[in-house]
Formats: sequence, C-alpha cells, structure tokens
Amino acid sequence: MTHNINHLAIVVPNLDEALHFWRDALGLNLARTEENPDEKVNIAFVEAGSSHIELLQPTDPESGIARYMEKRGAGMHHVCIEVEDIEATMQRLREHNIELINDTPKTRPTDQIRYAFIHPRSTNGVLVELYELP
Amino acid sequence: MTHNINHLAIVVPNLDEALHFWRDALGLNLARTEENPDEKVNIAFVEAGSSHIELLQPTDPESGIARYMEKRGAGMHHVCIEVEDIEATMQRLREHNIELINDTPKTRPTDQIRYAFIHPRSTNGVLVELYELP
Repeated sequence: MTHNINHLAIVVPNLDEALHFWRDALGLNLARTEENPDEKVNIAFVEAGSSHIELLQPTDPESGIARYMEKRGAGMHHVCIEVEDIEATMQRLREHNIELINDTPKTRPTDQIRYAFIHPRSTNGVLVELYELP
Repeated sequence: MTHNINHLAIVVPNLDEALHFWRDALGLNLARTEENPDEKVNIAFVEAGSSHIELLQPTDPESGIARYMEKRGAGMHHVCIEVEDIEATMQRLREHNIELINDTPKTRPTDQIRYAFIHPRSTNGVLVELYELP
C-alpha cells in the first residue's frame, strides 16, 4: 500500500503501564518487545492493522528521547511513512524546500530498512520518519 | 483489518501550507477537503495506505482546537483506531479503569460512523478516538 503508516511512535514513562492500555484494555496484539541500548530505549510494538504502535520507554534520563519527554511530556513522538524510493522522495522534499534531518538515508543493520527523518520545522511540528522497506 | 489506524489527525495553522508538505512534496494523494462549521475547522484528508492523515485547520480562535494549538503548538492531535464493537470496547476500557470522554458512542449523521474519545489522562497523553464503521 502506497505511503502506509509503518508505525506511530509514542514516548511513555513505563512500558507495562502503556501495555495495560494498548494491549490489555484496548485489545491490540503485542507483536514484540526489544531493548535498544544504542538509542537508550526499550520498545514494545503493538499491532494496529497494517501499522504498528511503537511504544518507547527511555532508559537513560540523559538521552534525547528522555529529554524530549521531560520537556514535552509523554505522548505521540513521530509518525513513520513507507515510501517506494527513499532517495527520490528525499530529492523531491529538498526541491520543495523541506528540511531533512538526515542528508542521506541510513540503513538498519538488523533488517536492512533504509530510513531518514524530516525536520519538524518543515511539517508543522510533526517529526516524520521515512522507511524504504527492503 | 483489526484495529486499523483510521486516521492520524494533525492540527495546522494553514491547510495550503500543510498540503505543500504532505501532498506536493511527500506525494500523498489528497482524498478530499471539507468544511466543518460545527467543529470550527476546515479539514483535508490525505491518503496513507489504509489510513488517512487528517489535517485540521481551526477557523475560529475561540474553538477548542484553536485553543489546543495556541497552547501546545501545531502537531499531532489524535489517533483514531477502528474497533469491531465500540460498546464492548468501551466496556472493557472501563473495566480496566481507563477514563472515557464520551459515556456512550456518538453517531455521525453523514456516514453513520459511531465514535468515542478516550481521555489522554489514561493513555500517556495521547488523545485516542475509537471508530466503529457501519
């Protein structure tokens, strides 16, 4: 599906408490949890149709995501949109004077997904991630 | 699809400027626009896979949505999740001590969608809407 919402990321103080709502009360399936020591977050992915809700719990108060939560409060953090060709998309964004956080796509070693972030200054305050699936 | 993200709503100061990003630069299709004088917003729906991005521009500075934007800034406002049986879902939420904004589902006269909102106090600051499609 074109431009599928791959995931909506939500920063939370506590994964168990967040899963009480999303899984136990609302009834979404927990797909998996993972620890990401590089980004200093623990993550739970719950299934929402062809998308996931990605719950992010900071594990280090000095990390970027912890400081975001300290400043803005818990809540929606970013939305990730799938694109067919991330480099062509980034080129078109630049031509429309949209500011990118990453100059070139990064590649996740675990699953070969290529990704890049768009700056919230260009999107009315919404941090948008792009995914090109392998 | 179970628990599909029906839409992600984003409050913006100006629809044309928001469409410059979502439609012209990122390439999402504009599905439709509508004026909602009751809620005092103009709305543009852009397609994102099986979901929509719902762009909300307040039309009256005294409205709830305008005051939200004044206080919190532009950005993601709520996420809407589709459920099979909204009353059963609301009952299960209550049993898990989740606070609802609406005691009973409302029905939109235009399309017969039944909907209700969950209070952000119970969801780490995320305003969640439920849809039961007709």
